[in-house]
Amino acid sequence: MTSLDELPLRDDLRGLTPYGAPQAPLPVALNVNENTHPVPEAVVGEILDDVALALSEVNRYPDREFTELREALADYLGHGLTADQVWAGNGSNEVLQHIMQAFAGPGRTVFGFAPTYSMYPLIAQGTGAQWVAGTREDDYSITPESAAEQVAAADPDVVLLCSPNNPTGTPLGLDVIEAVYAAARGVVVVDEAYHEFAPKDAVSALSLLPGSPRLAISRTMSKAFAFAGARVGYLAADPAFIDALRLVRLPYHLSALTQAAATAALRNAGTMLQMVDEIVEQRDRISATLEALGYRPHPSWSNFVLFGGVDDPKALWRALYDRGVLIRDVGIPGHLRVSAGTESETTAFLEALASIGSAS
Amino acid sequence: MTSLDELPLRDDLRGLTPYGAPQAPLPVALNVNENTHPVPEAVVGEILDDVALALSEVNRYPDREFTELREALADYLGHGLTADQVWAGNGSNEVLQHIMQAFAGPGRTVFGFAPTYSMYPLIAQGTGAQWVAGTREDDYSITPESAAEQVAAADPDVVLLCSPNNPTGTPLGLDVIEAVYAAARGVVVVDEAYHEFAPKDAVSALSLLPGSPRLAISRTMSKAFAFAGARVGYLAADPAFIDALRLVRLPYHLSALTQAAATAALRNAGTMLQMVDEIVEQRDRISATLEALGYRPHPSWSNFVLFGGVDDPKALWRALYDRGVLIRDVGIPGHLRVSAGTESETTAFLEALASIGSAS
Repeated sequence: MTSLDELPLRDDLRGLTPYGAPQAPLPVALNVNENTHPVPEAVVGEILDDVALALSEVNRYPDREFTELREALADYLGHGLTADQVWAGNGSNEVLQHIMQAFAGPGRTVFGFAPTYSMYPLIAQGTGAQWVAGTREDDYSITPESAAEQVAAADPDVVLLCSPNNPTGTPLGLDVIEAVYAAARGVVVVDEAYHEFAPKDAVSALSLLPGSPRLAISRTMSKAFAFAGARVGYLAADPAFIDALRLVRLPYHLSALTQAAATAALRNAGTMLQMVDEIVEQRDRISATLEALGYRPHPSWSNFVLFGGVDDPKALWRALYDRGVLIRDVGIPGHLRVSAGTESETTAFLEALASIGSAS
Repeated sequence: MTSLDELPLRDDLRGLTPYGAPQAPLPVALNVNENTHPVPEAVVGEILDDVALALSEVNRYPDREFTELREALADYLGHGLTADQVWAGNGSNEVLQHIMQAFAGPGRTVFGFAPTYSMYPLIAQGTGAQWVAGTREDDYSITPESAAEQVAAADPDVVLLCSPNNPTGTPLGLDVIEAVYAAARGVVVVDEAYHEFAPKDAVSALSLLPGSPRLAISRTMSKAFAFAGARVGYLAADPAFIDALRLVRLPYHLSALTQAAATAALRNAGTMLQMVDEIVEQRDRISATLEALGYRPHPSWSNFVLFGGVDDPKALWRALYDRGVLIRDVGIPGHLRVSAGTESETTAFLEALASIGSAS
């Protein structure tokens, strides 16, 4: 049998193992920040109708410009956006990869404030760019002054700001984004994957787009839209920024089925987003109960909670696993992360945790 | 309005324009080697049933290992292949990108015999690798001796062999592949996107896989399976080669809908491939008629015909366009390329061509 080492693999990939959250078929899976509510049946029916139409001409290449989908995304985002300011990919990971292929790549640098989304360094390095990690305050917040100072010092080609931040849930003020944009020479990407779970009066970085051609706001349909399986990420930016992404995407990167399914889901955004309030309620219930149990949950504007005060994260993770509940050890000492599930999944997690005992 | 030049784009992308075959809503589109026969209705029904199932849990991330799809692809390919020897992506372009990310990239070289598939240099350069073009005989064939000599001299990290070749349709002997593999230090990829249109007794390079861990055979469902809109490319190789691709793919790169649709289509391979014979018949009719009209069609094992003897390709392309028939100017002096359509589309092309007059 041939081993990977015997193949002429790139030197920088030698010894690596594939990315992947541990997967296990447990009854309660709250480990990858999915929306655990299925898509409502009425919407599934509408999506199927549109997929059936797409299948009738699936022998042809799809619309390379996915125009209908971009129009639907622009409508959903609001802020007066139009289709020429919108881009999409197979998950926001691919959208971020397009950005890094266009603006980072070999000899360039990508900057983010650690701890943050673990795919950022992997996607950056995958394009040949160097990842540079900045720092946060002890509570994972970032001040405008420190952010501007760090970005000016690192002078990166791409800055990635996760708002709210994954895996900490920490909100990010618009003042920080403005300070980073002013301090940066390169492009600034605000990843709002979890924006829909923020308080209703939270202002999106979309409001900063006018006059900011180096700014991009990325989103995903995986979370609030309960569409993780369909792989649809997207972003809004200046039309020139979108043109740059056209240079690096593979032609026909979005299938006709993806375009049809996403467009139908967006037409039903109202129904699709009905689960969001319920998830926010469960998230806040998790935080309150964790606190009562003596853990230290971090403030979260997302659909998950990072909590500290865990003496032995590996042991607690395993004890929950043995009780049929899968959560995530994100590698932060003394911490674990849990996604807000349905009411009954959340109850199962909280009861399992209580049965293990309080934090020390 | 901001222009692309004002953004901090990578220097090597400056001045480029996005890839893209010219698109036009003409009645007869024979320009991008699509299968112009729609998927049979009975199969569409089966696909929809499986997509409906996938939608019922589309709120969850898809199977990152797309195990069912890999099993179905292994079954279809035969040659005793198993799922651990199979990989897939959103179109064979993405599969090739994974290969180049793993084995090429910055500081490495990718080699192919020009003229060949126009995406090869673009994907190579997109990963930071350098594209090196080898040469063919005047009739676009390649001899084992010349191939081995050129590959040994260039010493590339990745060799791409298109079999049959696009845009020329030229078959490639297994002896050439064996000679290249023996001469190469790097990985050797045989792109069999059009293999199903070759003579029934043509032997696939899959037969060379045992004992060749640096060899990969890529295929696509876009052509014979009439599935271009669904974006499903795949490959077979040693399990260690597949492991290398796991290091560079984005997690969850294949959507649950793609996995479901492709698996259902493969279950109906017999029905899906019924169009192949009909397309081959039209291809041979195109070649015969072109010859009768004084053009010089090149031998083709694919679903398209490249023909020479065209005095002014741009003028002939335009004259056909004005008659409602879209074909392709692939940039080879004195040549145009046409895809074999349905019987009536093929007739429309041939009658339009005849009405313009014979070759000089």
